[in-house]
Amino acid sequence: MKAAVFHGPHQPLTIEEVEIDQPMAQEVLVRVVGSGVCHSDLHFVDGYYPFPAPAILGHEAAGIVEAVGPTVDEFKPGDHVIACLSVFCGRCEYCLTGRTHLCSSRPVRAKDAPPKLRWQGKPVNQFANLSAYAEKMLVHQNALVKVRDDMPLDRAALIGCGVTTGVGAALNTARIEPGSTVAVFGCGGVGLAVIQGARIGGARMIIAVDVHDKKLATARELGATHLVNASSHDPVQTIREMTGGGVDYSFEAIGLKKAAEQCFECIRAGGTATVVGMIPIGQKIELEGSVFLREKKIQGCSMGSNRFKVDMPRYIDLYLQGRLKLDEMITRRMKLDEVNEAFRAMKAGEVARSVLMFE
Amino acid sequence: MKAAVFHGPHQPLTIEEVEIDQPMAQEVLVRVVGSGVCHSDLHFVDGYYPFPAPAILGHEAAGIVEAVGPTVDEFKPGDHVIACLSVFCGRCEYCLTGRTHLCSSRPVRAKDAPPKLRWQGKPVNQFANLSAYAEKMLVHQNALVKVRDDMPLDRAALIGCGVTTGVGAALNTARIEPGSTVAVFGCGGVGLAVIQGARIGGARMIIAVDVHDKKLATARELGATHLVNASSHDPVQTIREMTGGGVDYSFEAIGLKKAAEQCFECIRAGGTATVVGMIPIGQKIELEGSVFLREKKIQGCSMGSNRFKVDMPRYIDLYLQGRLKLDEMITRRMKLDEVNEAFRAMKAGEVARSVLMFE
Repeated sequence: MKAAVFHGPHQPLTIEEVEIDQPMAQEVLVRVVGSGVCHSDLHFVDGYYPFPAPAILGHEAAGIVEAVGPTVDEFKPGDHVIACLSVFCGRCEYCLTGRTHLCSSRPVRAKDAPPKLRWQGKPVNQFANLSAYAEKMLVHQNALVKVRDDMPLDRAALIGCGVTTGVGAALNTARIEPGSTVAVFGCGGVGLAVIQGARIGGARMIIAVDVHDKKLATARELGATHLVNASSHDPVQTIREMTGGGVDYSFEAIGLKKAAEQCFECIRAGGTATVVGMIPIGQKIELEGSVFLREKKIQGCSMGSNRFKVDMPRYIDLYLQGRLKLDEMITRRMKLDEVNEAFRAMKAGEVARSVLMFE
Repeated sequence: MKAAVFHGPHQPLTIEEVEIDQPMAQEVLVRVVGSGVCHSDLHFVDGYYPFPAPAILGHEAAGIVEAVGPTVDEFKPGDHVIACLSVFCGRCEYCLTGRTHLCSSRPVRAKDAPPKLRWQGKPVNQFANLSAYAEKMLVHQNALVKVRDDMPLDRAALIGCGVTTGVGAALNTARIEPGSTVAVFGCGGVGLAVIQGARIGGARMIIAVDVHDKKLATARELGATHLVNASSHDPVQTIREMTGGGVDYSFEAIGLKKAAEQCFECIRAGGTATVVGMIPIGQKIELEGSVFLREKKIQGCSMGSNRFKVDMPRYIDLYLQGRLKLDEMITRRMKLDEVNEAFRAMKAGEVARSVLMFE
């Protein structure tokens, strides 16, 4: 199969012929239909987070089951599925207390089993247990959820990571309440999904913050009630003025130290800041200690605190009802060999989401 | 009446004859029986937090109602009461959503009303709307709760701040679950109360951290299951080893930047650090940003997120049942004119709690 191979930080991905194994017990082979280009991959290409090369990146994909391994009875060839990096064991303490996204013993192939992926005869590392910048994925059954056949798979792909992370950050991690006030820093794919989660959850004020007017316009289209261009206005000051003291909930959806600090600064007493973006390793978030006395809170978010086998089919229903907007989030559809261009466009702030299409 | 007057940071309090007004509408005059010496007062004496002098400090007291103002029907002379600095209006958004401790319009005397307190003919500032280092307090009715007559008032005094803050931090702010693992940094009055809250709430592992062995021994007596002397052991490393990766809940009960950072570092994925102590103004808490991805949380705590008119009578029942231990927390009983010595002993780590006794 064709796949985009990662050779290490600061190097372009290259399209190669890669061998993919057949499914073993509990595994499923999926033909990828759409694969979203998410900012988290860029963190590895840019070297902010480490991952051993050679590898195949990509972790936001939907497709069609091609084959299942022994003992798999949840899926059959032809099923439409979304993949999720939150693969879970189902029996650790986190899984058993409803927090499968924090699973502490994610299932992987035994050390002595053959590699799932090979290039030029040598093993290729599977990123996020998925490796979705490829024509096929070989994944554990607990990395997949079956979805309705009438759901278009390019838009389903977005639910695989960005949408689930953003909507989940609002509804699962922060649990915003109807009538609450929300600020979202960053209007890329994840930020737009947070905005939609806030809208679906009934927030009365949704303040979008970005430095690109074009992204802010998309934010308004998807549910933001107020816009702040942070290149011309101090977002903390502006949000405090707009809300009379600060928001109930704020979200960092960029992965920037400064934005995380601003998120904490713009909440009111008793408010909650949720860091959704990936802050580069080694960077400290600095928070005024005395402010904690006003019972402020800052928390991380892992993949929208998802229970993805539960959440994703719900998000699809919301999409098909017109309540969760996905068409507006896809700026471009591209081919696999345009993946480096997709990264460039994302870095330049030109797109909300690019999706690599395989058919 | 006699009161200990604060003349500004780094100066000893002096005992003076102070005039106290009669109660106006919604106010109650209380004869103080016991007044605890809490570390928060020391923050003002040491200049870490500002408060305008002259003032009367003290904010952890119990006593007996001496007179009530017009419209007060909740109290009558002779009632035993505990005072709390979390005076609330009862009608702002915080009060109406069950968070009276965050009340955004705390009731105070009108600007043109006479001062509550006078010394040498001039107004004296009322600290925390209480001013409890004095023979009498003149407070709003929503700064008081009536308690059972069979509750000894010196021990009731501790419930006025430290116990409510600590037990509330565990049960209201963090909402620890039965079976969870807890670490408490600092075994002064508040830390010991957190430990007791964790025990009452059913934590299976309660790790006390302090630099004084004597305080750690008291911690064990009050419910700690494991002790860490931070002067000889790295608390983060030790807690991670004891728990196989970190605790579910940690609490900072000192007011130290470093301890707050360690609290965040010693929690496991999905864990919650609660900052209960007062970090000096201007000090930043520095947290590794990438760690938030493991869905860790750090939150402030204001007075144990109390609903004190609800919580305090419950704590008294627990005390009288032998489940909340207060006798063990009072190291010394002193007279009002020994208040400076009480501060010194607290700073030296010699005492859990001193209580000033007025009869």
